[in-house]
Amino acid sequence: MEQTYRLVIRCPDRVGIVAKVSEFISAHGGWLTEASYHSEPGSGAQDPGWFFMRNEIRADSLDVSLEQFQQRFAELAQAFQMSWFISDSSVRKKVVILASHASHCLADILYRWHSGELYCDISAVIANHDNLRSMVEWHGIPFHHVPVDPADKSAHFQQVDDLLQQVEAQTIVLARYMQILPAAICERYQGQVINIHHSFLPSFIGANPYYQAYDRGVKLIGATCHYVTQELDQGPIIEQDVERISHRHNKDDLVRLGKDVEKIVLARGLRYHLEDRVVMHGNKTVIFD
Amino acid sequence: MEQTYRLVIRCPDRVGIVAKVSEFISAHGGWLTEASYHSEPGSGAQDPGWFFMRNEIRADSLDVSLEQFQQRFAELAQAFQMSWFISDSSVRKKVVILASHASHCLADILYRWHSGELYCDISAVIANHDNLRSMVEWHGIPFHHVPVDPADKSAHFQQVDDLLQQVEAQTIVLARYMQILPAAICERYQGQVINIHHSFLPSFIGANPYYQAYDRGVKLIGATCHYVTQELDQGPIIEQDVERISHRHNKDDLVRLGKDVEKIVLARGLRYHLEDRVVMHGNKTVIFD
Amino acid sequence: MEQTYRLVIRCPDRVGIVAKVSEFISAHGGWLTEASYHSEPGSGAQDPGWFFMRNEIRADSLDVSLEQFQQRFAELAQAFQMSWFISDSSVRKKVVILASHASHCLADILYRWHSGELYCDISAVIANHDNLRSMVEWHGIPFHHVPVDPADKSAHFQQVDDLLQQVEAQTIVLARYMQILPAAICERYQGQVINIHHSFLPSFIGANPYYQAYDRGVKLIGATCHYVTQELDQGPIIEQDVERISHRHNKDDLVRLGKDVEKIVLARGLRYHLEDRVVMHGNKTVIFD
Amino acid sequence: MEQTYRLVIRCPDRVGIVAKVSEFISAHGGWLTEASYHSEPGSGAQDPGWFFMRNEIRADSLDVSLEQFQQRFAELAQAFQMSWFISDSSVRKKVVILASHASHCLADILYRWHSGELYCDISAVIANHDNLRSMVEWHGIPFHHVPVDPADKSAHFQQVDDLLQQVEAQTIVLARYMQILPAAICERYQGQVINIHHSFLPSFIGANPYYQAYDRGVKLIGATCHYVTQELDQGPIIEQDVERISHRHNKDDLVRLGKDVEKIVLARGLRYHLEDRVVMHGNKTVIFD
Repeated sequence: MEQTYRLVIRCPDRVGIVAKVSEFISAHGGWLTEASYHSEPGSGAQDPGWFFMRNEIRADSLDVSLEQFQQRFAELAQAFQMSWFISDSSVRKKVVILASHASHCLADILYRWHSGELYCDISAVIANHDNLRSMVEWHGIPFHHVPVDPADKSAHFQQVDDLLQQVEAQTIVLARYMQILPAAICERYQGQVINIHHSFLPSFIGANPYYQAYDRGVKLIGATCHYVTQELDQGPIIEQDVERISHRHNKDDLVRLGKDVEKIVLARGLRYHLEDRVVMHGNKTVIFD
Repeated sequence: MEQTYRLVIRCPDRVGIVAKVSEFISAHGGWLTEASYHSEPGSGAQDPGWFFMRNEIRADSLDVSLEQFQQRFAELAQAFQMSWFISDSSVRKKVVILASHASHCLADILYRWHSGELYCDISAVIANHDNLRSMVEWHGIPFHHVPVDPADKSAHFQQVDDLLQQVEAQTIVLARYMQILPAAICERYQGQVINIHHSFLPSFIGANPYYQAYDRGVKLIGATCHYVTQELDQGPIIEQDVERISHRHNKDDLVRLGKDVEKIVLARGLRYHLEDRVVMHGNKTVIFD
Repeated sequence: MEQTYRLVIRCPDRVGIVAKVSEFISAHGGWLTEASYHSEPGSGAQDPGWFFMRNEIRADSLDVSLEQFQQRFAELAQAFQMSWFISDSSVRKKVVILASHASHCLADILYRWHSGELYCDISAVIANHDNLRSMVEWHGIPFHHVPVDPADKSAHFQQVDDLLQQVEAQTIVLARYMQILPAAICERYQGQVINIHHSFLPSFIGANPYYQAYDRGVKLIGATCHYVTQELDQGPIIEQDVERISHRHNKDDLVRLGKDVEKIVLARGLRYHLEDRVVMHGNKTVIFD
Repeated sequence: MEQTYRLVIRCPDRVGIVAKVSEFISAHGGWLTEASYHSEPGSGAQDPGWFFMRNEIRADSLDVSLEQFQQRFAELAQAFQMSWFISDSSVRKKVVILASHASHCLADILYRWHSGELYCDISAVIANHDNLRSMVEWHGIPFHHVPVDPADKSAHFQQVDDLLQQVEAQTIVLARYMQILPAAICERYQGQVINIHHSFLPSFIGANPYYQAYDRGVKLIGATCHYVTQELDQGPIIEQDVERISHRHNKDDLVRLGKDVEKIVLARGLRYHLEDRVVMHGNKTVIFD
């Protein structure tokens, strides 16, 4: 994999943003391997709308260091009121996976990581059951069994929080974790906590979505990968997909068929996130795929 | 198209239903061109579950008339507590389409009917706007403009009701009609009124589902074809499908892309209904496709 | 619909293209509503790869006329060895549709045009059967019945060619035309003739693809929209899609189900073409959707 | 999982088959949990067509043993010239997986087996590379490294054949095995060898289908699960699916995206096979899903 720098930008729209940014990149010798743009029209003269941009630049084409590039770009960024960052594709993000006892999403991520498809470090797997220990440890990843006391979950969350900080987690994946993260953790890792919900949101929020789907008699079931916010199942959606079902499928079939959708939707969403292809904007996302 | 009789059955499940029914058909020389079965498991000893069955029999293979077949079958049906009917594939159902000013679903049904894909009579199109008259009349179908007074819709619905009875409507299609049918009409035509809702129900019930979808930031939009009941957008679902969207699509794009999903979902649902492939069961459907 | 200018570019890749082009646009006040880029990596030092670009610029934001913009841009274009054009979104392309006796693709395009979804002029429909005349003429479009003599098709093609030139056709749609266009016409309208083939190419080239699909026992059927070249069914693919089938579907069902795929694939492909979203590159296409 | 007997039948079509078979089942107390039928119309009076049937019967509902049921049914079967079998859902088929060095299909099957989704025994994994040993052995499955000498593959195939016979393999899965099985093995295990081909057959037969797909510029890539016959990539198709791609995807992306389609298509096809849902008929399949 060729090393690249990813420059991701969000700012109020106006004439000349692309010109200034690409002129800047070009002036430093930057060879673009990907460039994606999106403008969200505003509502009128007072609201020019928003502009989003993702540039992928060959690292070896720049004639300055990443630090120098960042320093110089900061000036331009300020002039355009940009929120922005630049990341190095060769630096692996530190991921922690939270799980419960269901294995399908966890096993899928572990496989993709192990086979080199997902470029990241998996610093730890934390689960409130111990049944997945052997699978995780075979991959050479530390497994932490942190039980939940239903009467008082605070000890559990304290331990989870400690572990996250200990490994300096950057991205947290809720792989069918089945617990609601405390507000404090959501806030600290805002835009970094990814959940897979086993329904086509906003349908069937909350518990047992497949049973809800069965009872409603829908003809497709789905899954939703989204960023976690403090409101349950309401965060910005990254990816969704569906699978056809029929009256021949019972509740167990829905659970089984749904697993394949969950796995693929989570894998796509996580990949977008790890490659810095997602820009959050209010409660929505721009995905530069 | 070969003439067939369609025997459609719903009854409590038990041993021997298929045996008895197929023995009966066979004893009258009946050659099956299609046979579909479904059993819905019950919850235990007191609840044996339900059995559903659809047989398509070549008309020319029977050694008795349809009437005789029906009379004799009634006895067997009673023994098994069946709700059942037998229909003749060569008899066209009388369909009335209710529309407003949007043309896409109406035009699609008219085309499929005109090209022989949908086997039915379209007895009338009733709309609360007059803009679609020429399109409908080109097809040789009577068009009735029945305006709606928002302050008092009763006159409108009275006229609609009169027209439905006048043409002896059997199936009513709400092709983006945008009005809520009165309970009395829903009840009289129970299981015969088909609506197309422009969302993937149960997401985005009610008005402006595409705008709701846009605001929520979903990554797929959908459409739902369902039987109309007195509760808005809650009736048994016949068919659903979705289409992928992205941040690049604005609200108008969603409306445009959604039209294609609406058309195909309504066409499939209506076809299932016209071919007696749908069995309602509580608030769900069994589709023998 | 807001008036825009669409600047579409293809050139050998190098550092600074985006910078120069967007600087140029910005210097003339150009407000981008869409900007899409693609770079096709080359094979090494001697082959830098190719760069593709499509900018959509608000017409009212430019401080020069379209002609002036074009003249000035030509210089820059030459320096980068660009093949390029700029088009005005408010100018409707002149489309001629060639058909035979099957109506589904033709009716679908006519409907989309009539309802304002496809922005173009349909200058004429030419068919070698007369059965679709009334449908076409209801839309206010001239219909030309030009029969084909199977023993000698030259008279037919001469007439078609004359009609194309008479109406100054810019885009030609083969809506299940079922004839192979002579090389001379293919060449004169290179990159402007769009065909819908009723299979998922390269499967089932040539005649009766649904029958071929049935005999092979595939589980999905498809359709392909492509530019016509002199080699049968080998031109650059614009769009494809598929539909699931099963053993329950006979050959007639495949034909019926395939129609819906053909219609939607052709409609999408034609839309991309009309909106200047397709860049041909060898025997492939870049689609800026 | 409830124990059932699966009665699968193929015979020339005529009046009364369903009646006789279901009467027979019912006379022995058989409670149907599933019943599926298909008739393939013949070409005329001399060719009545074919009839296919799959009944799933609750084991505990029969008043005779499986052996007695089979003996008595044989008489009826002969009268109707049936090819048929009855299988016990609680008996796990013995599966051997042949692999090379690519892990995705193998890992996917292993996971589904390990999590209880695929009901079978995996008696052995045989691979011509050793890199997957640890993964296989973690699952408690014997791994056999049987290298291939490209100059003379006969020793390899002899060992494979010996191993297959040693473990009494019933179903053989080629999980990206990349070798062409000798005719003798194909013949001995006819209808029991399942391959996953990484293209939407019949497109891109043979080597490097993703590269072929890339060069042709298709807009969807696919995978095909089929029974292996002596003709390369020509056997009866069990399942297929596709994934959308665009010009933004390079050859490596196609390989990566294709893996997910291969996995799901192979998993579905294998499941159909293990549950006796596939009936081969000439070069096609009837799938009772």
